[in-house]
Amino acid sequence: MRNRINELSNWMEEQQIDVVFLNSTENVFYLTDFHTDPHERLMGLFIFQQAEPLFILPGMEKQQAIEAGWSSEIIGYADHEDPWNLAKEAIEKRELTEVNKVAFEQETLPYRRSQSLLTLFPNTQVTSAEDKLHYMRVIKDQSEIEIMRRAAKMADYGVNVGVDALHEDVTEMEVLAKIEYELKKKGIREMSFSTMVLFGEKSGHPHGNPGDRKLKPGDFVLFDLGVVLDGYTSDITRTFVYQHASDAQKSLYDTVLQAQLASLEASKPGTRIGDLDKIARDIITEAGFGDRFPHRIGHGLGINVHEFPSMSHLNNDKLQEGMTYTIEPGIYDPSIGGVRIEDDVLITKDGHETLTSIPKELQIIK
Amino acid sequence: MRNRINELSNWMEEQQIDVVFLNSTENVFYLTDFHTDPHERLMGLFIFQQAEPLFILPGMEKQQAIEAGWSSEIIGYADHEDPWNLAKEAIEKRELTEVNKVAFEQETLPYRRSQSLLTLFPNTQVTSAEDKLHYMRVIKDQSEIEIMRRAAKMADYGVNVGVDALHEDVTEMEVLAKIEYELKKKGIREMSFSTMVLFGEKSGHPHGNPGDRKLKPGDFVLFDLGVVLDGYTSDITRTFVYQHASDAQKSLYDTVLQAQLASLEASKPGTRIGDLDKIARDIITEAGFGDRFPHRIGHGLGINVHEFPSMSHLNNDKLQEGMTYTIEPGIYDPSIGGVRIEDDVLITKDGHETLTSIPKELQIIK
Repeated sequence: MRNRINELSNWMEEQQIDVVFLNSTENVFYLTDFHTDPHERLMGLFIFQQAEPLFILPGMEKQQAIEAGWSSEIIGYADHEDPWNLAKEAIEKRELTEVNKVAFEQETLPYRRSQSLLTLFPNTQVTSAEDKLHYMRVIKDQSEIEIMRRAAKMADYGVNVGVDALHEDVTEMEVLAKIEYELKKKGIREMSFSTMVLFGEKSGHPHGNPGDRKLKPGDFVLFDLGVVLDGYTSDITRTFVYQHASDAQKSLYDTVLQAQLASLEASKPGTRIGDLDKIARDIITEAGFGDRFPHRIGHGLGINVHEFPSMSHLNNDKLQEGMTYTIEPGIYDPSIGGVRIEDDVLITKDGHETLTSIPKELQIIK
Repeated sequence: MRNRINELSNWMEEQQIDVVFLNSTENVFYLTDFHTDPHERLMGLFIFQQAEPLFILPGMEKQQAIEAGWSSEIIGYADHEDPWNLAKEAIEKRELTEVNKVAFEQETLPYRRSQSLLTLFPNTQVTSAEDKLHYMRVIKDQSEIEIMRRAAKMADYGVNVGVDALHEDVTEMEVLAKIEYELKKKGIREMSFSTMVLFGEKSGHPHGNPGDRKLKPGDFVLFDLGVVLDGYTSDITRTFVYQHASDAQKSLYDTVLQAQLASLEASKPGTRIGDLDKIARDIITEAGFGDRFPHRIGHGLGINVHEFPSMSHLNNDKLQEGMTYTIEPGIYDPSIGGVRIEDDVLITKDGHETLTSIPKELQIIK
């Protein structure tokens, strides 16, 4: 955590940024080890190029932030106090010589708070703090990787619970409820996104909604789920067939699997990130399903379930050791349904490690 | 929905506001009947004093918005398109004479989007759209009330499931998981906040976290939960005792119940809102627990689980027919635990209706 603040300070010096203000749950967690979302109440972290950092948050959370390891100045304000006034006083004590440039999270800081922030630093230039944080967070350290391995195992467990819950006429929502029930019993407080359980033709929509659809023999069964564990996310997709598979289903599945494996195979340091999408898309296009793969190959994964690196075909950056992301090609047919196969991937020194580990050969659930 | 846009237009005319831009899931839902959260993608609703409204959102959601009933202009943009450019073109076609004042959601619109918005309307005065929407949303119409009644019944059901799941040595998380499991099987996709199940001394913290604490005879059992149903929330708290209750527990419980009933009794059109807090607080203070009731009497309830009216003792507004809010006094003792009793309340023509209906006399669960 101290290392991360130092890295940010070095960047501030290079960029001649005097103050960084961070307000998102994710970036504040990344720099303080304290994960909280005080909703409408202000939480903010000031990093100064020439002075001690300042953490401001609701008073009832102050002690927990200290227990999480925060050792610089911290202001816990009461509901009747104006946190911006308290910040102003604390900043005045720092006797900063001149503040010419302030960086903040322009994509997340609401307009009114940006006005309050800029009142503290009048006549200053503003810039974005987000890209720097994205690029810091894109390389995971050992402690982050260890948590992400555990989060991925929990996602595996969720899929296994889902498979065990399948029987004729069970509904998507019943299976979904069972998955989340068993995960909660393992201590999972939060899923990383709305769990998806889709049967038959409903799997043919990449953003379908689980509902009352009952399971029938010959249906595809698509699970897409992940958990939040100690502040980090996982995200897995597996597709099965119930009772018996048609040739058309097998062909769809096999194409997606070949695309997924090829894209995984290319996952190693030095590969151009955009190529991962291209490799999978070429296989799907050659098989005649090019227009049925309407989304990107995946997304970066970490504190956010969607973060850097961008896994778009346009991304010219190279894969580096410590990057984590998903590989999730899919083919969607509105009549017979869809197949998507998704793993969480960590780039290692020589190649990659897949953090999720449910087998991927087509399984026909009896 | 058309009525609501008309009411907003009338206010715009009064206030000489030329354009309103709304971006929050809640306010967009309120005016379009379409509930979605496209996360990092832009969604926005422009209301013009002199021209047709314009709804802009990700292309994949356009059809659903139309099905929800939106009949004015709608732009569904693709990921490679710049939605602000598309908005600009659509606005230019409206040939607005002059835009002197723009209102937007200053508490939620992120800084960067505010800059994009103001680029569309250069040299304009800005003001807040939020208060007007809060005051419109504070009075519920019949269709909203009908949904909120159903949402409250689901919350009742959740508490009943929780009570049925109690047995010695069961953990808080196991009971919580069972509640959400059964609600999901009833079709509930989202809880209105993190469900709380707290045993014994853990109930003594108003913001406790459910965990591995096992249920023992003599424990308080506190449930605080709610669901999101068709875009509206519910929120109930009930406290029980497991196996046997001490005199200290009974005295705590009885004080909270008297306070809750007195505050409910005063819930009718014309009562000063701030008095509801005072009435409950006076009873709790007289019983000697004044310093153990550290939060407000409740909060407004509707599309958001916390919305207007503000139920603070400082609120001088009067209760009006159609307002919905919670009444939830509590007393917290770190050693023996806490009691909170919460109902969802609707102000009717002559008095009030409690939407939640689990009995409130102290129940000792055997």
